Amino acid sequence: MKEYKDLSKEELLKLKIELENKYDDMVSLNLKLNMARGLPSAEQLDMEADFFNTLNPNVNFISEAGIDCRNYGELIGIREARELMGDMMEIPADNVIVFGNSSLNVMYDTVARSMILGVCGSTPWCKLDKVKFLCPAPGYDRHFAITESFGIEMIVIPMLPTGPDMDMVEEYVNNDPAVKGIWCVPKYSNPQGITYSEETVKRFANLKPAAEDFRIFWDNAYCIHHLYDDKQDFLLEILEECKKAGNPDIVYKFCSTSKVTFPGSGIAALGTSENNINFIKKVITIQTIGHDKLNQLRHVRYFKNIDGMREHMRKHAKILRPKFEMVVSTLDKELGGLGIGTWTRPIGGYFVSFESLDGCAKDIVKRCKDAGVTLTGAGATYPYKNDPHDSNIRIAPTFPPIDELEKAIDIFTLCVKLSSIEKILSER
Amino acid sequence: MKEYKDLSKEELLKLKIELENKYDDMVSLNLKLNMARGLPSAEQLDMEADFFNTLNPNVNFISEAGIDCRNYGELIGIREARELMGDMMEIPADNVIVFGNSSLNVMYDTVARSMILGVCGSTPWCKLDKVKFLCPAPGYDRHFAITESFGIEMIVIPMLPTGPDMDMVEEYVNNDPAVKGIWCVPKYSNPQGITYSEETVKRFANLKPAAEDFRIFWDNAYCIHHLYDDKQDFLLEILEECKKAGNPDIVYKFCSTSKVTFPGSGIAALGTSENNINFIKKVITIQTIGHDKLNQLRHVRYFKNIDGMREHMRKHAKILRPKFEMVVSTLDKELGGLGIGTWTRPIGGYFVSFESLDGCAKDIVKRCKDAGVTLTGAGATYPYKNDPHDSNIRIAPTFPPIDELEKAIDIFTLCVKLSSIEKILSER
Repeated sequence: MKEYKDLSKEELLKLKIELENKYDDMVSLNLKLNMARGLPSAEQLDMEADFFNTLNPNVNFISEAGIDCRNYGELIGIREARELMGDMMEIPADNVIVFGNSSLNVMYDTVARSMILGVCGSTPWCKLDKVKFLCPAPGYDRHFAITESFGIEMIVIPMLPTGPDMDMVEEYVNNDPAVKGIWCVPKYSNPQGITYSEETVKRFANLKPAAEDFRIFWDNAYCIHHLYDDKQDFLLEILEECKKAGNPDIVYKFCSTSKVTFPGSGIAALGTSENNINFIKKVITIQTIGHDKLNQLRHVRYFKNIDGMREHMRKHAKILRPKFEMVVSTLDKELGGLGIGTWTRPIGGYFVSFESLDGCAKDIVKRCKDAGVTLTGAGATYPYKNDPHDSNIRIAPTFPPIDELEKAIDIFTLCVKLSSIEKILSER
Repeated sequence: MKEYKDLSKEELLKLKIELENKYDDMVSLNLKLNMARGLPSAEQLDMEADFFNTLNPNVNFISEAGIDCRNYGELIGIREARELMGDMMEIPADNVIVFGNSSLNVMYDTVARSMILGVCGSTPWCKLDKVKFLCPAPGYDRHFAITESFGIEMIVIPMLPTGPDMDMVEEYVNNDPAVKGIWCVPKYSNPQGITYSEETVKRFANLKPAAEDFRIFWDNAYCIHHLYDDKQDFLLEILEECKKAGNPDIVYKFCSTSKVTFPGSGIAALGTSENNINFIKKVITIQTIGHDKLNQLRHVRYFKNIDGMREHMRKHAKILRPKFEMVVSTLDKELGGLGIGTWTRPIGGYFVSFESLDGCAKDIVKRCKDAGVTLTGAGATYPYKNDPHDSNIRIAPTFPPIDELEKAIDIFTLCVKLSSIEKILSER
């Protein structure tokens, strides 16, 4: 099989007509398929049925500390929930606050709090002329949306196989006091599925920020979201590394059970130093009387402990694995050797990341859309929705049933081919 | 019976010794009683047992609009929850956003949002030299804590039997562009149990604010929290009045089921104009993917509709009524005619408000504490915890079992007497 770039103009034109016919057939099917967002499938959610029996009229609602979880109190979460989420984050319960249903909300509030009240006594960011965040990209669009909404300047940091380009990170963080934060998805990153190397984590922990109120926003969304038992990435625990490096306050860790139990009805947590916890406690004691302790209790009683959670995630993996494998093998089969794209082979997380020829991503997404397949908008994985190469496409294979996913990925590969041919022809 | 002020010095001194002996007896009992905060009692919470069967493995989790409530989506709440909360607030579902578990959190976020992003396009409050809020007082301490935490200047507005002093409110709001808001608990107010009169509501609706970004923070926390079937206050619905007055955007209504189902595990809602809803939607779409729809579904399926909720609140009233009646009749019996205090006779809400002689409230609360009875801190019902007369004490009779409450209120009346005698003697 020849790479497309080695085909003659005539060969390309002939192929183009063939593919266009196929594409027209697809369009005429009026499909409605969606590979846009990282949603658990109904099959995963069905599995959680017993969760709803966890609390019932015959159980008590008293926490281990003797608190009636049906009433007010326990601002930072019941102890056993802090322990469970601490185990999920591999840190002690003392370093954990359990919040409401959404880690995104916790992250948003963490930035908002810094805007209005500063960080542990620093000048509120809204009083500063300029606030900047580093944004490893491709990354999670909702992270970038938060910083953009507050008028924070976003600086793109390229992603390497080991994580963000740490030379650049160090250069910015250690020299520019306007750099106040960096967004990270350190394990099975969104969308590339990259896990930061040990060296990367250590370099993060050993940063010497020019700004005392610089913080790492460590969104460990996929910490226990492995696809395989025997192939798993290992991520060095950063809070301990920061402590060792004399930087105990430099990191906020975030996680949630949104993709463990239920998106929107899980529990979310923040893990950070005692200093940071104390400051945040003072602020949130004004914001709320407490989060949903019954839901915390539900989670603790359902899973019992981190082993229960890991066991549960194995069941999720069993459902998700065939979907990921089908997507990757279809990409291999249809696009392998053609020189018109590269793709990831995830062993965890929620996405497959695709890199097209430069300048083709928007066009591919549009073609897919016209044939009834919704993908995450091209550019969404970059700050300001601006992918400088217009090449990254995030594929989310988790939600659709596998037969729909098959159709969708067929259309996708067809669109990649068509778009690439036009691109190559336009450059001849 | 003579008023204390008409007793001779000798009579007062004699009485003082008698009461001190009684007080010492009480102290020696080492009681631990709490009338500090407005918590539902365990008896109220026990009643909700069936709530936990509402969602179980045998039901479906699909909203009326066909949304799987177990997955992401429905940022502003499922339609049927918006309807239920709309009925609670007496406004259409279109004007409602259902949030998470805490209306306090919604209020905090509403102020925080205005600080960072302004109100519907106005200058962010954090960019202004001065922001002021009007604070009808006595009022809810947690409202004042929010504005204080953001450095907003608080101006005390006296409470009259008809609600806040509207002459003063109009004077400030209509002339001072730094006045951006006012905190209101318009029905069965905290702590006085006052319901704003029709004229008061109409005057609110007809304000002509000097600031375009002025908003009324209408915390209708006790909207369906009646103690009697046959004696109920009526509050004019303000959103419609504002619309009629050509001020459609001037009010945010807040409510929750914290004291209907479970504090911390209820659902909270905001009710406001379409303009405000659209602005807030744009902001919260960055903050979260959605709130806990399963809990919304639980509430809707448990109550079915507002009639179910009202019926349910009748059962709460049955539990609470004897407590309130015992408190008021004890105050009548022990303090009536002595001229050393006045108290409210609530027909709804969660509090009894007590006015001591000037300068006695702190002393009474301290004496109670020393005898094992915790009350809300004196001054807490005023901005900056500064009660200018040192006279208001908030009594929260809902949580303790009635036998404990009896003991606590006995100690309270004893402390009022002792404190009043010392005050009168000191002025002779």
